[in-house]
Amino acid sequence: MAEEFKVTPWEVTGDIDYDLLQRKFGTTPIDDKLIARISKYGEVHPMIRRGIFYSHRDFDHILDEYDKGNRFTLYTGRGPSGNTHLGHMMPWIFNKWVQDTFKVPMIFQMTDDEKFLFKDLTLHDTRSMAYENALDFIALGFDPDNTRIILDTKNIERLYPIALKVAKKINFSTAKAVFGFENTTNIGQIFFTSIQAAPAFLPTEMSGKQVPVLIPCGIDQDPHFRACRDVAPGLNYPKPCTLYCKMAPGLNGSDKMSSSDENATIYTTDTPKAVKKKVGRAFTGGCVSVEEQRQKGGNPEVCAVFKYNYYLFESDDAKLNELAEKCRKGEILCGECKMCLTEKINVFLEEHQDKREKAKDVVGSMTYDGFEW
Amino acid sequence: MAEEFKVTPWEVTGDIDYDLLQRKFGTTPIDDKLIARISKYGEVHPMIRRGIFYSHRDFDHILDEYDKGNRFTLYTGRGPSGNTHLGHMMPWIFNKWVQDTFKVPMIFQMTDDEKFLFKDLTLHDTRSMAYENALDFIALGFDPDNTRIILDTKNIERLYPIALKVAKKINFSTAKAVFGFENTTNIGQIFFTSIQAAPAFLPTEMSGKQVPVLIPCGIDQDPHFRACRDVAPGLNYPKPCTLYCKMAPGLNGSDKMSSSDENATIYTTDTPKAVKKKVGRAFTGGCVSVEEQRQKGGNPEVCAVFKYNYYLFESDDAKLNELAEKCRKGEILCGECKMCLTEKINVFLEEHQDKREKAKDVVGSMTYDGFEW
Repeated sequence: MAEEFKVTPWEVTGDIDYDLLQRKFGTTPIDDKLIARISKYGEVHPMIRRGIFYSHRDFDHILDEYDKGNRFTLYTGRGPSGNTHLGHMMPWIFNKWVQDTFKVPMIFQMTDDEKFLFKDLTLHDTRSMAYENALDFIALGFDPDNTRIILDTKNIERLYPIALKVAKKINFSTAKAVFGFENTTNIGQIFFTSIQAAPAFLPTEMSGKQVPVLIPCGIDQDPHFRACRDVAPGLNYPKPCTLYCKMAPGLNGSDKMSSSDENATIYTTDTPKAVKKKVGRAFTGGCVSVEEQRQKGGNPEVCAVFKYNYYLFESDDAKLNELAEKCRKGEILCGECKMCLTEKINVFLEEHQDKREKAKDVVGSMTYDGFEW
Repeated sequence: MAEEFKVTPWEVTGDIDYDLLQRKFGTTPIDDKLIARISKYGEVHPMIRRGIFYSHRDFDHILDEYDKGNRFTLYTGRGPSGNTHLGHMMPWIFNKWVQDTFKVPMIFQMTDDEKFLFKDLTLHDTRSMAYENALDFIALGFDPDNTRIILDTKNIERLYPIALKVAKKINFSTAKAVFGFENTTNIGQIFFTSIQAAPAFLPTEMSGKQVPVLIPCGIDQDPHFRACRDVAPGLNYPKPCTLYCKMAPGLNGSDKMSSSDENATIYTTDTPKAVKKKVGRAFTGGCVSVEEQRQKGGNPEVCAVFKYNYYLFESDDAKLNELAEKCRKGEILCGECKMCLTEKINVFLEEHQDKREKAKDVVGSMTYDGFEW
């Protein structure tokens, strides 16, 4: 029996039924046939194989155009409301794979305006966080010559004329139906979707020809791109296509890693000691006693530690299955499993933190239109 | 018995009851006491003496601050949806008097975004019109060193962060109540008031100290500035103060000169012949026959030709009264009166069109932040 859940670009609560969500939003499952087609371009990313990126809008169209020689532009983004955690990194890691596989340009939008409008933060706060988040994004190794970072308040002169065109096509009724706005919603929040739509149309606007755009991101963002796709034909822009992932789970067993529970959230700047402590406290599928677990085995399906391997830290399917098997048979206990994950995360973070430091040298040269941070 | 009338920043219809409008909006009459106070700074402008600029919000506060040495900044604007006509020029002429009298800086906002959102125009259209309108504004002789022209889409990087702060404080309920928005209103229109509020806070934002701002404009703009004043204290900005005028009448006897009736509207670029034709067709307070008018006299109160003298073309009160007297006594007929007004308008326009040409040399240097047209 599914609990009530809610997924909007600004709020994710409850136990998410991802199939139901897909039907509700009207997006298309990534099925075996599509996966087979993707495999022609390179090794299929584990996040696709494992159904983490599980839904899309017109991704086949992107491939059709690509096959004809019409390269798409990648676009994804981040609402800079706090430090980067592994849940934010997950879709970025996937985006990096798309850029590498298809050799395409990437636009990364940082919505400092959005987070100002929706959170109790100043513009100074959201801009500082945007800078910090950008370092993590760059550290993942996006091609510096082919990747540009948009900061909404800095690139607004470029975004605003496009946003106006979008806004003129969306009335309050529609916005209300798509986003669930109420009378208490502020007028900046109501307008904001136009700004998030703008980068999807920017490549066409700048080049003067119809450039397909692919947006890999969390499925919670679909309301924006649904609205954006609806207005595209009337503005003579191509409809942006999307690839949607599930939310990265929290270490506390929740469906979404969130800064609201810092102990269940691993930040990119966490120390090895902090990671050890957080993973040590993670929600698992283990039994109450060692004895019982040796006998009955654990339950990897509900285990946050297993999910972390599944989502991010064990890309080898055989090894992942082996781990699940051992858990179910009681051959590996939670303590050991947590130690292994801690080790993997810390190896990843040590390297990431190095690259993050080096990103400070290039973050200035990767801004859209060369804005200064 | 007053007809139904409607006054919003985007729609003015019906026979306007300006006293009722003032009570409805909650603005303060410009009374004899205030006029006496204004007279200390220089000769009181005819538009104030004659009750054309007839209402205000906190103008006395502007004078209090001025007396303490705290100079205000003037701010007015134009929605560039078409060629400039005399009705647009009226409040600008008054603004010029304020700048001359108080020696203060002036910000002129051209809302190309607004007109794009509210009219069936492209951004290219509204920007071109903004340029044309700016020439007329400059031709009135504003101090080029102390006057800056804002074009919303060009100065958006400066305006947007302020607009976001404003937008965060205004919810849909409030916007709906103030502007009469409906479900069909587009989301850009809903947001727009934040952009119109921004220049009122710009002087404080730029200088880091509380700069009073005075906005002389048509009373139809009050909804914007009412909303703007409501949010100011919470943002630590001074409340902008306003001086409101009535709408300039049309030559067809309507309450507002409007481009919807081109024959009743004198544009700044009209030829002497066109002016003669338009004034010739004007609605007057004359009788059906010359004979009858010689006997019974005319009615200047309802006469568009007389109103043009009253609003713009006869600044000498004695001469204006004499004209009204002669009309009432049947000593001057409509034909002669129209000829006199035609002559005055054409003298004004000849000079204006000269200055308008010369404005092309300075329009580039008077842009805010030096944007290029």
